[in-house]
Amino acid sequence: MSPETILLDHGSGGLASQQLISSLFLKYLDHPVLAALEDSAVIQNGPGRLALTTDSYVVDPLFFPGGDIGSMAVHGTINDLAMRGARPLGLTLALILEEGLEMAVLERVIASVARACKESGVPVLSGDTKVVPRGKADKLFINTSGVGLVADDIELASRLARPGDKIILSGTMGDHGLTIMASRAGLALGGNLQSDSMALHHMVADLLAGLKTGSVHVLRDPTRGGVATVLGEIARAAGCSVEINEAALPLRPEVRGGCELLGLDPLYLANEGKLLAVVAPEVADAALELLQAQAGGGESAIIGTVGLDRSTKVTMQTVIGGTRIITPLHGEPLPRIC
Amino acid sequence: MSPETILLDHGSGGLASQQLISSLFLKYLDHPVLAALEDSAVIQNGPGRLALTTDSYVVDPLFFPGGDIGSMAVHGTINDLAMRGARPLGLTLALILEEGLEMAVLERVIASVARACKESGVPVLSGDTKVVPRGKADKLFINTSGVGLVADDIELASRLARPGDKIILSGTMGDHGLTIMASRAGLALGGNLQSDSMALHHMVADLLAGLKTGSVHVLRDPTRGGVATVLGEIARAAGCSVEINEAALPLRPEVRGGCELLGLDPLYLANEGKLLAVVAPEVADAALELLQAQAGGGESAIIGTVGLDRSTKVTMQTVIGGTRIITPLHGEPLPRIC
Repeated sequence: MSPETILLDHGSGGLASQQLISSLFLKYLDHPVLAALEDSAVIQNGPGRLALTTDSYVVDPLFFPGGDIGSMAVHGTINDLAMRGARPLGLTLALILEEGLEMAVLERVIASVARACKESGVPVLSGDTKVVPRGKADKLFINTSGVGLVADDIELASRLARPGDKIILSGTMGDHGLTIMASRAGLALGGNLQSDSMALHHMVADLLAGLKTGSVHVLRDPTRGGVATVLGEIARAAGCSVEINEAALPLRPEVRGGCELLGLDPLYLANEGKLLAVVAPEVADAALELLQAQAGGGESAIIGTVGLDRSTKVTMQTVIGGTRIITPLHGEPLPRIC
Repeated sequence: MSPETILLDHGSGGLASQQLISSLFLKYLDHPVLAALEDSAVIQNGPGRLALTTDSYVVDPLFFPGGDIGSMAVHGTINDLAMRGARPLGLTLALILEEGLEMAVLERVIASVARACKESGVPVLSGDTKVVPRGKADKLFINTSGVGLVADDIELASRLARPGDKIILSGTMGDHGLTIMASRAGLALGGNLQSDSMALHHMVADLLAGLKTGSVHVLRDPTRGGVATVLGEIARAAGCSVEINEAALPLRPEVRGGCELLGLDPLYLANEGKLLAVVAPEVADAALELLQAQAGGGESAIIGTVGLDRSTKVTMQTVIGGTRIITPLHGEPLPRIC
């Protein structure tokens, strides 16, 4: 009989660890490389450079409208690979569990990891589980790392933004951030507000395949810190100013309303299924069409331009005709957003 | 002025995160790929298959004789790559910090990560930092993942152990496990007891280069669960019995004494700088000599044999002439050992 909660013994590396692996992890994550349970996964290589990334997930609550910590951990790491143009090959999954965590909660999270992996076609290849005593962690933290291959003709980086480039956002801002905030506060904001968590590697592959090589300069996913913070990072890395247009920013009415109610700025809210693309001006319309044709990209919009001056400032033309300077996020509006 | 403790704001992804990265992480971990601060690291690929691994570290205390959570996180992940014969290319470093952690503690850990990376020649290429509120984690957890390349003629896996193979342990057992237990209990066990945490990739490279291709069948590092548990995993994966000889097991007198005092079995204690090599019998003496010539391998010994029967049992000839069945670790003698 398996216990109904996580025990310290499940992190011992001994018998209980092996039982947890075989009865739960391998039940859902059944890739043969993972199932070999070796110290590391060994897989076929391919042409191109290697991409490598890591992210830990500490989101609270574990489950929220539109996703959970498991699906988010898969999507987020796939997206970090995709933003460099990498084709994701596989993920690692490392869990830190609090003693006493309900086994049913863990199972629900692992089932969600497995579903997200299956939907995105990116398997978990290697894993690790640690258990800490009650009160030394909060239920469940996940780290996913990922490896992928970048074709030799793809070069995407923030520093490659050029004056005159157009900036496209692949959909509405702040859906994830406001969903987490509302969940945590027990607020029902109405409408169809839910996290936008999704994997973007197919969207990226189609975008790159559909445009002239080298015409996409930067891809970034505006997670923590939101669109404002990532635009600032691009401006500083490229040594250019960035100008955006408030009227062009896609925003769900429920997010606009929720932000007004709570005194939040959606420019700083996290997104988990959106990308910012900085593209050469001559392909901007084609890029927009390609993104709008993608699942989850229907609301894509050209939101701004990389400026001609070297100030590295981000400014926004407001709907009332003024200009606002957009600084990076300062202060933490919402800890444990991801 | 930078704060003396970690604030929630350091995990926001905004300004404070950027300041922490530039003032602390990049001060110590100065690889240009990491310093680009992109969503993932992109590096040159090479010939061979890809190896991928992950481990989280939750060791308590953070600092102990012979190492700390930072050096251990580097060594442990390098070792997981090395056990498959991979040449490590780089690591990711993901931190989960508790609000209120002293900045000086974090700096000491990061300096140790950097030193271990430099000594082992394996850089941190990508990172992530999350901060959780006070009481939601215990000071500092680290995840390191790693990627490496495995030459096409190298095939190491537990299932490849064959009847008649010799089993070599690269040094004394239980040094890490007993050090942590003694540190936590405030026990001074005397002698030179300290963790054996070290990177084993050079030892592995020299071993494989010095022996006939294909004559090393399995390499495993006996961390959590110790030598006993890993031998059981090899026996089950290969479908063979394993026989070890108690008199041949290398053991420091202070570990023997400490284990007697505390009622522990060193076979189940964690090691962080040892490997078990399962090799064809005709190369066993040469393998032993090669290992003994390595830094940290001086106490290497042939400790047993892969048996001829298919029972998958591990047995030990005891010093008093009996036979003891060695089962996998059952129950957790010491949580947060790594």
